[in-house]
Amino acid sequence: MTAIVARVIVTPKPAVNDPQGITVRQGLATLGFGEVTDVRVGKYIEVRLDVRNEKEARERVEAMCRQLLANHVIEDYSFDVDTDGRSSK
Amino acid sequence: MTAIVARVIVTPKPAVNDPQGITVRQGLATLGFGEVTDVRVGKYIEVRLDVRNEKEARERVEAMCRQLLANHVIEDYSFDVDTDGRSSK
Repeated sequence: MTAIVARVIVTPKPAVNDPQGITVRQGLATLGFGEVTDVRVGKYIEVRLDVRNEKEARERVEAMCRQLLANHVIEDYSFDVDTDGRSSK
Repeated sequence: MTAIVARVIVTPKPAVNDPQGITVRQGLATLGFGEVTDVRVGKYIEVRLDVRNEKEARERVEAMCRQLLANHVIEDYSFDVDTDGRSSK
């Protein structure tokens, strides 16, 4: 078995309201960051899993995104998989 | 002025409890994803800004992370900056 780390990014679809993003933009403007034109806030999910190979990891993580990690009505997702050296920490 | 998009990832520090991650791992296990060994949940923040160049963008986004986007007591952050073609959508 191979230790794999998958890094999943879930973002609100472009057409969907993002109140968190608006709040962060206003906060940044108040702090003097007037150059900011837009902020979108999403989720970052790091999943560690033991699978046979990267291909299996991709299939499983794709299934996780569809079933739990993302709400495909209002969110987009993307991910990459990598062998887990815990070196990125 | 150049339109820049910065992609910021904020994660709980390794030593910090991550109840969201634990909940997601349990949810995945319930759905049959028993191969998952660990889940960490963080934030993904996409900031669009108009600045003179990439160097200025890096400095400004670094300041945003320190002042608002991340809580450096319990969170780590990383980001990359890119010219904004809105092509990644």
